[in-house]
Amino acid sequence: MARALELAARGLYTTEPNPRVGCVLVNGGQVVGEGWHKRAGEGHAEVNALREAGDRAKGATAYVTLEPCSHFGKTPPCADALIGAGVARVVAAMQDPNPQVAGRGLARLRDAGIETDCGLLEAEAAALNPGFIKRMQTGRPYVRVKLAMSVDGRTAMASGESKWITGPEARADVQRLRARSGAIISGADSVLQDDSALTVRAAELGLPLAEAEAAAARLPLRVLIDGRMRVPLDSRLFREPGPILVVCRGVRGREQDYGFAGAELLTLPDDAGERVDLPELLAELGARQCNEVLVESGAGLAGAFFQAGLVDEVIVYMAPRLLGSRARPLLELPIDNMAGAMDLEITDMRAIGRDWRITARPIFPS
Amino acid sequence: MARALELAARGLYTTEPNPRVGCVLVNGGQVVGEGWHKRAGEGHAEVNALREAGDRAKGATAYVTLEPCSHFGKTPPCADALIGAGVARVVAAMQDPNPQVAGRGLARLRDAGIETDCGLLEAEAAALNPGFIKRMQTGRPYVRVKLAMSVDGRTAMASGESKWITGPEARADVQRLRARSGAIISGADSVLQDDSALTVRAAELGLPLAEAEAAAARLPLRVLIDGRMRVPLDSRLFREPGPILVVCRGVRGREQDYGFAGAELLTLPDDAGERVDLPELLAELGARQCNEVLVESGAGLAGAFFQAGLVDEVIVYMAPRLLGSRARPLLELPIDNMAGAMDLEITDMRAIGRDWRITARPIFPS
Repeated sequence: MARALELAARGLYTTEPNPRVGCVLVNGGQVVGEGWHKRAGEGHAEVNALREAGDRAKGATAYVTLEPCSHFGKTPPCADALIGAGVARVVAAMQDPNPQVAGRGLARLRDAGIETDCGLLEAEAAALNPGFIKRMQTGRPYVRVKLAMSVDGRTAMASGESKWITGPEARADVQRLRARSGAIISGADSVLQDDSALTVRAAELGLPLAEAEAAAARLPLRVLIDGRMRVPLDSRLFREPGPILVVCRGVRGREQDYGFAGAELLTLPDDAGERVDLPELLAELGARQCNEVLVESGAGLAGAFFQAGLVDEVIVYMAPRLLGSRARPLLELPIDNMAGAMDLEITDMRAIGRDWRITARPIFPS
Repeated sequence: MARALELAARGLYTTEPNPRVGCVLVNGGQVVGEGWHKRAGEGHAEVNALREAGDRAKGATAYVTLEPCSHFGKTPPCADALIGAGVARVVAAMQDPNPQVAGRGLARLRDAGIETDCGLLEAEAAALNPGFIKRMQTGRPYVRVKLAMSVDGRTAMASGESKWITGPEARADVQRLRARSGAIISGADSVLQDDSALTVRAAELGLPLAEAEAAAARLPLRVLIDGRMRVPLDSRLFREPGPILVVCRGVRGREQDYGFAGAELLTLPDDAGERVDLPELLAELGARQCNEVLVESGAGLAGAFFQAGLVDEVIVYMAPRLLGSRARPLLELPIDNMAGAMDLEITDMRAIGRDWRITARPIFPS
């Protein structure tokens, strides 16, 4: 199963909106077939492994990181393929996260006389697909907020100057976060400030060439939250290829302008105040089959995601510098007493070049 | 030598103002004696090892973490003791850091026909005694600034409320920082805010009992920077035992009051502005034989040490929480552009309970 997880991880940058899945077929103590899912519309992991195994799949044990599907999608059900190949036993790391179909694939296998087990290295398998799992369970994507700061928690000088707080290795790491995401969300202020394109650039991914090119070939949706449509249509964002969704609070007949710029305009009702309704936006992105979304924005929008309790994971790149007490805060987050402080669970801490990367999960009061 | 370094480290909390030193005597491939320096006025490492070795020191090799002394202090010179015992070879990790006497101990040994080497595990040996080395070389102590913050770089709520940002393990670690220091410096604002005693408490050190008691038996000097003498004499600081130095900007005949409270008053000239002259204070503490001083204060005083370029090491305890953008900054440090940002070299990062400890050296423009 550990090998199947390794295979699944090869799809990290390409399977979206599908899950990353790996499969290993073992017969008589020998690996007879390996497969992983590369991208939507192409073969599932099980089918790829069966193809490699050929006749040797008969009587084999299949280790698969996700319960084999039992329904017809773009490809026929994998459960049927395993049955047809004469596999004797199927070990799944986890059930299908969609509560509507969870267990059906395994049941179908059992009905065909195949021995089944489920739960081996389940946590590791779940960690491969946080977005797919959350979307199947809630209809909403997994929200990852990326921030870059100094040791004293500042993201930019008071003037807005922020190039560069972090080093090239951390910026490559951010490129990889973009590449694994279904959508990248930013706000008008930061796009105006930095003229950011929010694209995945193969040369900056820090991956082997073939992998980098495959990753950059899939263009994540770029979502610009621009309530008052302030970002000009000749900005870098609109000049670079790839789908763009501009979220505003009133269209005023400009759909055509944005259409010419290659962007779709979406009007979302305000949530009482001045801001775009973020839960609505996430529901919309879930409906568009985005599994993981990356929020890359200034302190205001990122703070709004935190205040609304919508953040699943925060990744903070901490640069070895002090920007001082006049510089901009990490998050616009008004809290008045310690009881109101927001707890985090730090799940990973590691050096990325000369910077440090903190990965954490916010613990929102339930 | 690795063993000698381990022995030296046993003196971490007790040798101040002396250096931490360890010694191992090896004869015929056997360890025949071990020693370390425990506290000022008691035997040096070499003498303790020779005592353990007895006759077996004859012809032995001595591994010692610091060049043996050649002068009479509270005890006779160790070089003479090694010569007298008939040691054949002496390997020192580093020379005496005092430029006036560096190399003299080794020269004295060589003159007596003893083979000498120097520089084995030198960096590790130097790391044991950053304060002693700096004081010998410059007359000033090694300045370590301790800060506690949230992930977003905040030390307290706007109201000043700060109990507790960090967990008990981090607070025990701070107790150990205090215990290894010759002096602990704080400012009136934070002492007034927290009614802090700045003492070393054996029960809170998280050390084995005997070690904790030995550590707490040595009372570091507590230095209160209180320019206008605002901290009342019935504060916890004055009620707890141990020497206290109150640094102010004008005595106004209150020496006697402070004397009754067990504290010494020191008047330092202003450095042009409103603040106590910090370089002068450090020179004074160096003259008082403080090797390592710990600055435990609010953002203002800590920021002043940074602005004056006086910080050798900063230790930041980062708690897994967000305190928000209204909360107090890590340091009062006015910087206006990225070119003015202060670079750090992060030398250590580790989990302390549920918090993380960042150890860094500021890189001041030279």
